[in-house]
Amino acid sequence: MASYSNRKEDVLKRLRRIEGQVRGLQRMVEEDTYCIDVLTQVSATTRALQSFALQMLDEHMDTCVRTAVADGGGGNGDIKLKEASDAIARLVRS
Amino acid sequence: MASYSNRKEDVLKRLRRIEGQVRGLQRMVEEDTYCIDVLTQVSATTRALQSFALQMLDEHMDTCVRTAVADGGGGNGDIKLKEASDAIARLVRS
Amino acid sequence: MASYSNRKEDVLKRLRRIEGQVRGLQRMVEEDTYCIDVLTQVSATTRALQSFALQMLDEHMDTCVRTAVADGGGGNGDIKLKEASDAIARLVRS
Amino acid sequence: MASYSNRKEDVLKRLRRIEGQVRGLQRMVEEDTYCIDVLTQVSATTRALQSFALQMLDEHMDTCVRTAVADGGGGNGDIKLKEASDAIARLVRS
Repeated sequence: MASYSNRKEDVLKRLRRIEGQVRGLQRMVEEDTYCIDVLTQVSATTRALQSFALQMLDEHMDTCVRTAVADGGGGNGDIKLKEASDAIARLVRS
Repeated sequence: MASYSNRKEDVLKRLRRIEGQVRGLQRMVEEDTYCIDVLTQVSATTRALQSFALQMLDEHMDTCVRTAVADGGGGNGDIKLKEASDAIARLVRS
Repeated sequence: MASYSNRKEDVLKRLRRIEGQVRGLQRMVEEDTYCIDVLTQVSATTRALQSFALQMLDEHMDTCVRTAVADGGGGNGDIKLKEASDAIARLVRS
Repeated sequence: MASYSNRKEDVLKRLRRIEGQVRGLQRMVEEDTYCIDVLTQVSATTRALQSFALQMLDEHMDTCVRTAVADGGGGNGDIKLKEASDAIARLVRS
């Protein structure tokens, strides 16, 4: 079970929409669309991926991290906080 | 004709690889992959999109912007430089 | 008390170094340094600010968020998690 | 002469404002301001640096790059376009 498991259909729908955006980019390229218009769509796709990541991170902190921390002892809270922090750094730097 | 038109197959190949990454994300979600591992893949996909955008922007400046500027008069160089500058701002801020 | 209060001198030292980078930018401009070299320094300063933010966020999650969540009841954990999530979104989008 | 040389006072004013933001961060830390409020100010400072960079890049493309390209021959246009492209990649990735 992952923190998104009970709303997997929503998550998949969102990813399919992003896949649709990437396929839209391919169509634009096939039709020799002007570079600047392709780039505008790339920026929109990047933003959609970032929003997706932020929501997944939120849910993860709200469930896995919270549970591990609330459980106290065992150092599991430490591990989960470190993992989340590394994931955040990757998002900020990408 | 767009600045990438004479190497369209390469551009499409790159976009298909990004599409594959997004489909990989869907598989991960279907298999309840741990959120942090999904997020690592989202960051990789975001970086792939950014590299794609940077290459397209390069080619655009190297062809369309350069030609418009070299042609001089008519203000077309101004228009192309303004368009490129707006596209760069969208990339930096996304 | 903030989560960084017991190592305030370190935090201030880091911010003074960033201030030094911004003053370095001013010197470069006063000396008509080539734009591209100024831009390289701006990128370095931006990265320094981001690393600073990531460290502050880490400490905050490791102390304030962790304490609020471990305390359970009262909804304070919810508030802290929401605040952290909003701060992360601002960092990712800036 | 750099592309910003004839409006140097404006450029310096903008950098002094950013320096003021970084000093404001130091004051916040000295007063044990809540981490989340410090982070909000860090995000604002990062955005100010990015806007500064985008304006400097614009002017650079509008003057140095344009001139080098318009001059044609000698490969100077190539060099300037490559430099600009590298600077853009650093901005997008920082």
